[in-house]
Amino acid sequence: MTTTDLPPYARVRQAKRARYDAPAVHAILDAGLVAHVGFIMDGRPMVIPMAYGRDGDMLYIHGASTTRIIRDVTEGFPLCLTVSMVDGIVAARSAFHHSVNYRSVVVHGQAHHVTDPDGHDHALKVITEHLLPGRWAEVRPMLAKERKATGVLAMRIDTAAAKTRTGGPVDDAADYDLPIWAGVIPVVTALGRPVDDNRVVEGTPCPASLDAARHRFL
Amino acid sequence: MTTTDLPPYARVRQAKRARYDAPAVHAILDAGLVAHVGFIMDGRPMVIPMAYGRDGDMLYIHGASTTRIIRDVTEGFPLCLTVSMVDGIVAARSAFHHSVNYRSVVVHGQAHHVTDPDGHDHALKVITEHLLPGRWAEVRPMLAKERKATGVLAMRIDTAAAKTRTGGPVDDAADYDLPIWAGVIPVVTALGRPVDDNRVVEGTPCPASLDAARHRFL
Repeated sequence: MTTTDLPPYARVRQAKRARYDAPAVHAILDAGLVAHVGFIMDGRPMVIPMAYGRDGDMLYIHGASTTRIIRDVTEGFPLCLTVSMVDGIVAARSAFHHSVNYRSVVVHGQAHHVTDPDGHDHALKVITEHLLPGRWAEVRPMLAKERKATGVLAMRIDTAAAKTRTGGPVDDAADYDLPIWAGVIPVVTALGRPVDDNRVVEGTPCPASLDAARHRFL
Repeated sequence: MTTTDLPPYARVRQAKRARYDAPAVHAILDAGLVAHVGFIMDGRPMVIPMAYGRDGDMLYIHGASTTRIIRDVTEGFPLCLTVSMVDGIVAARSAFHHSVNYRSVVVHGQAHHVTDPDGHDHALKVITEHLLPGRWAEVRPMLAKERKATGVLAMRIDTAAAKTRTGGPVDDAADYDLPIWAGVIPVVTALGRPVDDNRVVEGTPCPASLDAARHRFL
């Protein structure tokens, strides 16, 4: 897909920071922990942080069946799903050139309720394994009442724009002579040591999914 | 403000996780690095990660004058500004009870362009100092052309709901006997060591704002 094929709402203003190819988009979607999902309700914009997962060009989100976005969002509703990570604070010699290093993706698509049992289980597996790869096989199977209590929305990626900033500050030429510190303060996100809930059956080891999750941050 | 005063879109479904008081709301807004700002454009929801800052019950966002949200959002447009931090991955003995520990605030308000020079400078100071407290006094003053190139939107907090989850997994009673690991994997966000841009004038020290920024993460 080239930029000219994209509707205006899906384009990034600063071309040098934008990518629209699937590998760039998928890498950022796969690195995020939560998505900020936007939808329109009663004429108002709503932005809700939600767990999510990706399988190919399909994104899944879930919630209690009674949650607004599950209960009130109807078939074909437009959704905007945004994932972003802050990688650094960029300090320049002027306030104007201060910035943030980041990776972000803005996806547009339409909501579809996933109701068939196989699709529903698959979506929940994708969402669970987004946070803890391999976890699905480690836990006990889903119960029928749990399936009923959990609503799943799928959205195919109609358009997606990745935008990133890397590197140091770019100051006005004259400002480099000023005795003002400038550079990048890295923002680091990492997983700490797992803390069990004090009721783990004795001798149960930390599972492989925890290690797999940790590798996402390396 | 009590829950019953709030319009439906501003209420949190799970009462036990919700707070609506200013101290709880402000603490989360002040701890975030970026906000996800939602608005409606051509009938579609848009969610854009943006730098922001808070002063009392006023929130400021900014962007290049040519940026969509600055250029196309008109006076009184409804905005939704959401700030969230992930504090941990909660692993349970069933997929159903997996969760995330987090802090989040969803704010609803209306966009107002800040055009008077003093208000404009004040907003930019608030946004700059949100990331680097005290930075405004360390850098060279804004230039007229920079003010012109930067658009500022203000939104008063009309309604705000804070929602947090803390603690370990809550499993079904029968599941505690299963030999499955369960607990919390902390997600840690921190600032790394500042990296200067190699053009800092010799002898220029790291400024106080960097230390102040670090204290936000302690």
